[in-house]
Amino acid sequence: MFSENNAKKGVTFPKGFKAAGIKAGIKKSGNPDLAIIYTEQEAAVAGTFTQNAVAAAPVLVSRQVIQGGKVHAVVANAGCANACTGAQGLQDAKEMADCTAAALDCKPNEVIVGSTGVIGVLLPMDKLRAGIKKAAAELTEHGSVDAGNAIITTDTYSKACATEVEIGGKKVRFGAIAKGSGMIQPNMATMLCFITTDAAIDAKLMQEALSDIVGLTFNMISIDGDMSTNDMAVVMANGAAGNAKITTKDKDYDVFYATLKSICTGLAQRIASDGEGATKFLTIHVTGTKSFADAKTVAMSIAKSPLVKTAFFGEDPNWGRVICAVGYAGVPMTPEKTVVKFGGIPVYANGVGAKFDGDKLHDVMAEHDILIEVEMGLGEAEATVWSCDFSYEYVKINGEYHT
Amino acid sequence: MFSENNAKKGVTFPKGFKAAGIKAGIKKSGNPDLAIIYTEQEAAVAGTFTQNAVAAAPVLVSRQVIQGGKVHAVVANAGCANACTGAQGLQDAKEMADCTAAALDCKPNEVIVGSTGVIGVLLPMDKLRAGIKKAAAELTEHGSVDAGNAIITTDTYSKACATEVEIGGKKVRFGAIAKGSGMIQPNMATMLCFITTDAAIDAKLMQEALSDIVGLTFNMISIDGDMSTNDMAVVMANGAAGNAKITTKDKDYDVFYATLKSICTGLAQRIASDGEGATKFLTIHVTGTKSFADAKTVAMSIAKSPLVKTAFFGEDPNWGRVICAVGYAGVPMTPEKTVVKFGGIPVYANGVGAKFDGDKLHDVMAEHDILIEVEMGLGEAEATVWSCDFSYEYVKINGEYHT
Repeated sequence: MFSENNAKKGVTFPKGFKAAGIKAGIKKSGNPDLAIIYTEQEAAVAGTFTQNAVAAAPVLVSRQVIQGGKVHAVVANAGCANACTGAQGLQDAKEMADCTAAALDCKPNEVIVGSTGVIGVLLPMDKLRAGIKKAAAELTEHGSVDAGNAIITTDTYSKACATEVEIGGKKVRFGAIAKGSGMIQPNMATMLCFITTDAAIDAKLMQEALSDIVGLTFNMISIDGDMSTNDMAVVMANGAAGNAKITTKDKDYDVFYATLKSICTGLAQRIASDGEGATKFLTIHVTGTKSFADAKTVAMSIAKSPLVKTAFFGEDPNWGRVICAVGYAGVPMTPEKTVVKFGGIPVYANGVGAKFDGDKLHDVMAEHDILIEVEMGLGEAEATVWSCDFSYEYVKINGEYHT
Repeated sequence: MFSENNAKKGVTFPKGFKAAGIKAGIKKSGNPDLAIIYTEQEAAVAGTFTQNAVAAAPVLVSRQVIQGGKVHAVVANAGCANACTGAQGLQDAKEMADCTAAALDCKPNEVIVGSTGVIGVLLPMDKLRAGIKKAAAELTEHGSVDAGNAIITTDTYSKACATEVEIGGKKVRFGAIAKGSGMIQPNMATMLCFITTDAAIDAKLMQEALSDIVGLTFNMISIDGDMSTNDMAVVMANGAAGNAKITTKDKDYDVFYATLKSICTGLAQRIASDGEGATKFLTIHVTGTKSFADAKTVAMSIAKSPLVKTAFFGEDPNWGRVICAVGYAGVPMTPEKTVVKFGGIPVYANGVGAKFDGDKLHDVMAEHDILIEVEMGLGEAEATVWSCDFSYEYVKINGEYHT
């Protein structure tokens, strides 16, 4: 569905969107660190944010913007999270919106502000002010790759995608850029995700769709179990495609919803796969519980277990650690009814280890992408969580990422 | 309180207890792997066990024994957990009790059975049967060190302690051996703890004391957040000290309770300090919450955060990760009222990073033992959790501990 060419077009694939990513001097590395996404045509907006009680200043500002229901721009920086920065931090986040609005001739409350990076450090506002002017001047319809690169931190690559569908007889485009690598257990995480579309849709309806979809996608990934102070996922819809505005849950809404879900699923998987130090991409599929919540709890218990994560790093089919994590998840579980499979091969059933072909299982463990299935046998609900392994590199990255 | 000499006497320090630890051939390494602790005089018994829904066979057997309220022996092996081993595993655990009872001339339901090691593998019963006979023949009043060494797995050393107090005018002794290193977040964990005392005390009263104390000690440590299938803490009191039997919560009970708590606290701290690959021992003290449960939740959220654990491994005073873990703990929290201290030095207050002497903080981070204090400012409750850092060695141990 997502061609590589379109992926590069990212947030500027939909009509009417421009983007830029520049070096403002915030990152010590000197890499790009400031991005703007802009639509001259007013866009309906929806957003979801971190549930961490210690929410960063940009989250506080952007939550307010979402209340207004419409935006013209996103400004986001990497290298400094502007979290735990008190009144000064809040003022700085507001000034980021002010500067962006001045440069783009829109209102400050029509600008989403995002930040990611080190916690507890104030933004270098001189650099931000100059950088915002520069980025605003460099906005182009080909700026998505630059914008994507300007919001990453420990990511090994920028996540992006783009796609075109038909809604109400019109070609409608979607594009997105996202980042997230450590402190990732969204609800949301050190995840920034900006999605653009030229669809016309009511802002409240879009918010309903986004909130629902985020619960099934970004909130279903876990890299290290840490929930960041800065997460946000924002969708902007400027209506430039010319489709009849979507205002109810009709056929057009269904296409919009399915497309948005597909985009969020793809990005969530890529964020998990690019987890800090990750060498494996783990899909954990739990079925047969009485509720989605139970299935998610079991899947997250497995995804967050350091013992499971290090076993997969070692390519060790240590199902004992998986069944142990199922056992302490705290939801109803009957060992004798539970089946665990790695790559489709049963490794645990009837309360004991299953007999399996060691060579075949060895091949499964050597793959980069590994499917862990847990059948609980107690109901009809299910859930899928995406995660990664725990490597020496994870310890290195996080033992050496000094404040 | 715990002299080194007494510590070596361990479970054989109290009158009437003998112990042995021998090589039964269960561990691939050839190290000692089978222990027996014995008291000819019948002992009142209390025990707490894993809450994991996938409880190992020895846990199922020993839970039954505790119901009877009296025992003569403990038999425990390392190298094989006898967990996820189905009906055969249960039969094997029962046979361990049978063999031990036969060798010691007591009843099978007076023998506690413990196992720790790899999950999902059946016990080599031929070796167990021979080993139990050998260990029973080698029981001595100096066997505690051998018994302690026979129950360890990835521990770098065996934990033991012993102490003497006065109860009702009589000298009363306590001793203990314990193991636990990985899959440690007791509730209980891959933790085995056997405590002996020559005190005379009612079994139900001792159970009440133990259950209470375990909630404040062993259940307050977290190494990797994984709760094992095999944990148990057992106390045996044979009354050989000759004190008037403790049957109510009087002054004598208070001394018994305080001594048992002191023993469990010391062992819990040593287990956390000897966590797999640990280079730091972290004491996390949370105060000012509305309930003990809230304080424990916040402390555990910090203790379990891989980002916090790797930061301390890197000796990085990254308070942002600590306050982030407080923020997502899911209990009431007001950033502006919260204070975080490392080694007594405030690093976060009034919603922002505190100004601190960098050199002094550097010295704190370089220590092996580090105190993390979080003052929530919302109530009078508090809790202390003991934990450790996350190192390359942790990944190595658990990526290479193959099934």
